[in-house]
Amino acid sequence: MFYDFNLNHPVNIHFGKGALNYLADEIKVAGNKAMLVYGGGSIKKTGVYDKITGVLKEAGIEWVDFGGCVKPWYADILKAVDICKKEGVDCVIGIGGSTCMDMAKVIAAGAANDGDLWEYIKGAPRANKGLRIGAIPTYPSGGSETSRGAVVDDQETGGNGTMYGVIPDFSIINPEYAYTLDAKNTAYGAVIAFMQISLNYFTGDSPISERLIEGLLDTIRDSVKVSIEKPEDYQARANQALASIYGTNVMPSLGKSREWVYNVYDYIGIIRRQLGISYRETFSIIFPYWLKAEAKYHGDEIKNYMVKIWGVDANLSEEEAVDEGSKKIIEFYESIGLPMKYNLVAKTMPSKEQLIKATEAEYYDGMMPMNEIVQLFEACMEL
Amino acid sequence: MFYDFNLNHPVNIHFGKGALNYLADEIKVAGNKAMLVYGGGSIKKTGVYDKITGVLKEAGIEWVDFGGCVKPWYADILKAVDICKKEGVDCVIGIGGSTCMDMAKVIAAGAANDGDLWEYIKGAPRANKGLRIGAIPTYPSGGSETSRGAVVDDQETGGNGTMYGVIPDFSIINPEYAYTLDAKNTAYGAVIAFMQISLNYFTGDSPISERLIEGLLDTIRDSVKVSIEKPEDYQARANQALASIYGTNVMPSLGKSREWVYNVYDYIGIIRRQLGISYRETFSIIFPYWLKAEAKYHGDEIKNYMVKIWGVDANLSEEEAVDEGSKKIIEFYESIGLPMKYNLVAKTMPSKEQLIKATEAEYYDGMMPMNEIVQLFEACMEL
Repeated sequence: MFYDFNLNHPVNIHFGKGALNYLADEIKVAGNKAMLVYGGGSIKKTGVYDKITGVLKEAGIEWVDFGGCVKPWYADILKAVDICKKEGVDCVIGIGGSTCMDMAKVIAAGAANDGDLWEYIKGAPRANKGLRIGAIPTYPSGGSETSRGAVVDDQETGGNGTMYGVIPDFSIINPEYAYTLDAKNTAYGAVIAFMQISLNYFTGDSPISERLIEGLLDTIRDSVKVSIEKPEDYQARANQALASIYGTNVMPSLGKSREWVYNVYDYIGIIRRQLGISYRETFSIIFPYWLKAEAKYHGDEIKNYMVKIWGVDANLSEEEAVDEGSKKIIEFYESIGLPMKYNLVAKTMPSKEQLIKATEAEYYDGMMPMNEIVQLFEACMEL
Repeated sequence: MFYDFNLNHPVNIHFGKGALNYLADEIKVAGNKAMLVYGGGSIKKTGVYDKITGVLKEAGIEWVDFGGCVKPWYADILKAVDICKKEGVDCVIGIGGSTCMDMAKVIAAGAANDGDLWEYIKGAPRANKGLRIGAIPTYPSGGSETSRGAVVDDQETGGNGTMYGVIPDFSIINPEYAYTLDAKNTAYGAVIAFMQISLNYFTGDSPISERLIEGLLDTIRDSVKVSIEKPEDYQARANQALASIYGTNVMPSLGKSREWVYNVYDYIGIIRRQLGISYRETFSIIFPYWLKAEAKYHGDEIKNYMVKIWGVDANLSEEEAVDEGSKKIIEFYESIGLPMKYNLVAKTMPSKEQLIKATEAEYYDGMMPMNEIVQLFEACMEL
């Protein structure tokens, strides 16, 4: 079945070695004052910060710095919103990984809308579109540079949420900015895009989308190995930056229902919180085991994925094919240096009872039965 | 080499059997009065017109009809602009093929900008964005429903031009509307998308784009045969409608320079005018012969296209591979009923001297040498 879809992707993307040439004009659409939201300072070491501020100086654009953003803490966002209002910022630019870009989106929404920002994050309608949003990714991965969502964590309450409807007005994507990524970050960035795109392979018949996905996944798998060995190979970095765009621009999902695949994010959420680890660590480990668990319900689709994407023999039975495919995924992930058991990365390991309790607390209809979820979790970790 | 690119695609696309449900809300963004631009009346026979006006009535939206548009005549566009101004139209909707959608775009620009419309078509900057533009394609083909251009012909002066920067604000794409297309229109629609997408296969190294193109072209080739045999096969019509979107949304060209391939449009222009035939007739016949002619300069790229897309043996020499590939293109086009010599479709056949003279008049640096152009033309027709 080919499902109905909506496609609306208004980000103005400038991609390539010359992308930064468009920054000043993009800011000036809104005004003459920018806020730069960035992380722990790596963009200062790599020279990206100087390149950006050089462009701003030359164009006579003022800016305020908002650095040190390592997690998307709500308290920091509130501080930045205040600064935007006081300083009359016109355009908020997230520079770095998804954390900084997500924060820029929420700051832009908050600065243009009075009222409780947490309510907006939870979905209350916003009267104003928000300040202009820019994104300058230095770490191709989850695709915040072209996505509509922004994740926020509240350090004080432990709460978290995703604000929707916040999409960058423009993105400046220069694959060279990823040259300085180390092997681990390169591998995780590629794998996150790989998995987000993979989810679209299931749930519907859309040969154009499926062929696009096959091309994306093969290219990511080839390119990440090149990038790890030769960090300054432009073609490989460009392939991954383009794949990262596709990872969230919905093109690979056109015609698909995406019915059951998003459940994986709920399993990820439970493990993340229980083990105190990151999204990328959680997703990469659970992915092959989750496919095996879901094969009970969607065996034909998952076998097809293993055959087409992982080169598994089509003559194997469904169970054998899924089993062999998930082994190949684990082998590949380990070959690029990723840990594939939660015990290797967990900040704290819960007991089996704690994990079951946490899962029961978040259980809803549409998840796999409790005993199968527990089996899935046990496959990924020694409890 | 992976080339820099800009990607900005703000059309809100509603695709599928339920797409029309979004029409009223899309119009109401701008106001309460629409103009419907359509062709010779086929949408009345097929019931599409009644479906659209049914939605408008139910939503309390007024409309004015502007039917009978078979060619994008400038004089008709001027009439429609006057009507829009007098009636206070808020949103201009092109329904049908590229002619009607292109006309809607130019009407929308003209109605919101005083001054000489022909100057705007020739590229003079427009002060206002224009009225809201909608597109409801019933004939997937060149992709006007998601493109930025609109072709206009001036019947009186013989002049023609393309207005740029006019992209629909929304498109309503229901693949079922193509069920009533006959075999010939189905074949031409598919082939136009096929060729427009093929041009992106050359000029640069972007494996993601190349794999996307391979998937698009294989899918079009499979689906058009199905649609001709079973006109109401939804999956096949949906595949072609989606391919038509990709045909102009620039995704297949990301990372490509598109340096020399657009020259083909200039050869097409000369033949069109000399033989008095349509774009689709001209392009489909010249395409395989043009590839052979360009192989002298871009033999490696064109051989690669023949191997990957047309299944030609990679061990053949460049010349043999291109020769065999172009034969396969001709065979395929003929198998879906398309005439492959200009003599079969020409309204008038020029003499060789006339054709040379016309070509010399339009010759510019960057075209192939004159004698090679003449050889190309002679390959496509008996003079």
